[in-house]
Amino acid sequence: MPELVTRHDQDHVARLVLNSPANYNALSFEMIETLSSTLRAIASDDTVRAVILAANGKAFCAGHDLRQMQSARSDVDGGRASFQRLFDECAKMMQQIPALPQPVIAEVQGIATAAGCQLVASCDMAIAAEGTRFGVNGVNIGLFCSTPMVALTRAIPAKAAFEMLTTGEFIQADRARELGLINRIVPADQLVETTMELARTVAAKLPAAVRLGKRAFYDQLRKGLADAYTQTGQTMCENIMLPDTDEGISAFLEKRPPSWT
Amino acid sequence: MPELVTRHDQDHVARLVLNSPANYNALSFEMIETLSSTLRAIASDDTVRAVILAANGKAFCAGHDLRQMQSARSDVDGGRASFQRLFDECAKMMQQIPALPQPVIAEVQGIATAAGCQLVASCDMAIAAEGTRFGVNGVNIGLFCSTPMVALTRAIPAKAAFEMLTTGEFIQADRARELGLINRIVPADQLVETTMELARTVAAKLPAAVRLGKRAFYDQLRKGLADAYTQTGQTMCENIMLPDTDEGISAFLEKRPPSWT
Amino acid sequence: MPELVTRHDQDHVARLVLNSPANYNALSFEMIETLSSTLRAIASDDTVRAVILAANGKAFCAGHDLRQMQSARSDVDGGRASFQRLFDECAKMMQQIPALPQPVIAEVQGIATAAGCQLVASCDMAIAAEGTRFGVNGVNIGLFCSTPMVALTRAIPAKAAFEMLTTGEFIQADRARELGLINRIVPADQLVETTMELARTVAAKLPAAVRLGKRAFYDQLRKGLADAYTQTGQTMCENIMLPDTDEGISAFLEKRPPSWT
Repeated sequence: MPELVTRHDQDHVARLVLNSPANYNALSFEMIETLSSTLRAIASDDTVRAVILAANGKAFCAGHDLRQMQSARSDVDGGRASFQRLFDECAKMMQQIPALPQPVIAEVQGIATAAGCQLVASCDMAIAAEGTRFGVNGVNIGLFCSTPMVALTRAIPAKAAFEMLTTGEFIQADRARELGLINRIVPADQLVETTMELARTVAAKLPAAVRLGKRAFYDQLRKGLADAYTQTGQTMCENIMLPDTDEGISAFLEKRPPSWT
Repeated sequence: MPELVTRHDQDHVARLVLNSPANYNALSFEMIETLSSTLRAIASDDTVRAVILAANGKAFCAGHDLRQMQSARSDVDGGRASFQRLFDECAKMMQQIPALPQPVIAEVQGIATAAGCQLVASCDMAIAAEGTRFGVNGVNIGLFCSTPMVALTRAIPAKAAFEMLTTGEFIQADRARELGLINRIVPADQLVETTMELARTVAAKLPAAVRLGKRAFYDQLRKGLADAYTQTGQTMCENIMLPDTDEGISAFLEKRPPSWT
Repeated sequence: MPELVTRHDQDHVARLVLNSPANYNALSFEMIETLSSTLRAIASDDTVRAVILAANGKAFCAGHDLRQMQSARSDVDGGRASFQRLFDECAKMMQQIPALPQPVIAEVQGIATAAGCQLVASCDMAIAAEGTRFGVNGVNIGLFCSTPMVALTRAIPAKAAFEMLTTGEFIQADRARELGLINRIVPADQLVETTMELARTVAAKLPAAVRLGKRAFYDQLRKGLADAYTQTGQTMCENIMLPDTDEGISAFLEKRPPSWT
């Protein structure tokens, strides 16, 4: 049986690939658990400085595994406990991404729909191949994308999100970039290379600074201005007291590359 | 005397039309009360699945009724109680729109200014005719658009909103779309048809799913990530336990249209 | 010794110019204190109705004064107290801008990096010359721009901010405008004139209305809808009870220019 998520590390970048193309990389219980445990392993792996979340096949991810979900309806409770557990575990996995010490870049092709679109929105950055489409189309089958909406509405303006959620219609990559859902669009044959280049760029920075910064990023996001500054001021202090940051600033002033430990 | 707001229902879509073109559909006490009571009636009308808010005449809405407001200045308190009641009732009416169970689409032509721009910003979605202009220009007459600002700053980026509010200058439809204030721009002669088509698209979805989703949309918007997921996870569970959603998912898996009650 | 910040008042507009071009207008302790005391003076100066924050030289502002910072490392505590004081005073100065009664317009040329980009993001509005570039590139020297991030993430979408922060890469003026970081782009030789024109436009409004409005703008921004409307409804009442606003509305209804005190 092939692995549901493959991991390949290179140049301090962990490249994760959703590997269930037959069902468009559906977020089944197994896929969620595999992705979650992979992220847990990376969280404590100091050799990893950036993560790519890619997918095998024609679609990045088409959301939940509807067949698996429907099979729970024969449970004595009609599936309620199973559904609760699914949405709960999926939401926890999605929250692992901003909570991960390392930046996570989505590498998206084909389509990203429902919880698959949520996965893109949950990543710190995203690059898409030309022609990629994004949708939160659960409403078409009577299941409003309420959990994907959490990540989506924190990435794009309210009215655009509302339209996607209630019409089930897809948006093209260029609109997704305009709205803020993705960072870059590249020709399909440059997708892997471009994402790896971005990951390498991030991985070349001082890892401790990136970790402090990413944690502060999400911590300060919804705070009032004064609280946000108190918190990030402490982060800046912690960061600048690192010997490697001393070296980084000195090297810059001396117009030479830094020599980091 | 003509009705201030006309209502015409078709295909589960309630089309409301502001009908005071002589004063550019000013939001007088009477217009606010009429619109408010119309929305109240729709809130409890299960036959309505989507709402269009349109306007008769050259302008969508030019804000408050300044003549009526000035007439209150001869009150013993200089008008203070009247103004307080006006802003209070207007704010309540504006908040009825996101609180309404059904999605509300603004259909905008000509100009939408001050509280008229607030009305557009308060709707869940908006379509504008080419050439429509938007402004929060109260500052030009010495009355900063502080209440319209509430809806505006929740729809578009801060600096763009600040510029509109302090300069009183208008933005064109294409900039309004770029910023997130409106969803679509169409030639004027296709405005009614396009809005109705969008409303029909939304009305064709499972009403219970749309209602659950819209309520969750605004409830989760300002919460922290964990709280937002807890809340929307419950919404997803409630949604998926609906027999019609069971049918919707089954129909999708069997590649047939759903047969909803 | 030349002044670090020059001030020139004209037509009720205070034009402040960062005047340390030799070090790209670095935000040293002295520059922060000078800018802070200048803003304090303006806050209580009723003759000022709008503020321009411009800069002398090839760069708007390149962030903190790294040489000065490194010199603190020889303190007995390795510089910690000095750094804490620097980030604290800088954050307080940045917060003086939204707290200032008068609108503040950044006039940006060349580059705005790190705390210099934060300065642009902290202003109420910003105009940039064609070719201006923006970055939060501290990560390149091992010091993640955690405090600049506070202002940046309140101005532009999350994913775009994250990319800038973790890659250290610059964005061009047109992308900055698309994202919401700046309001307008003009040819370099029209920058001073265009900014002054915008400042004059704001200064021509009723000062009391602009002051009430600006204060309400930031107060309501992060509140829930109901609280935001309660607060701004009171602002509207206070505003409309001003005799000058009575005059402004009357003048408008009588199609004549207002005669404000």
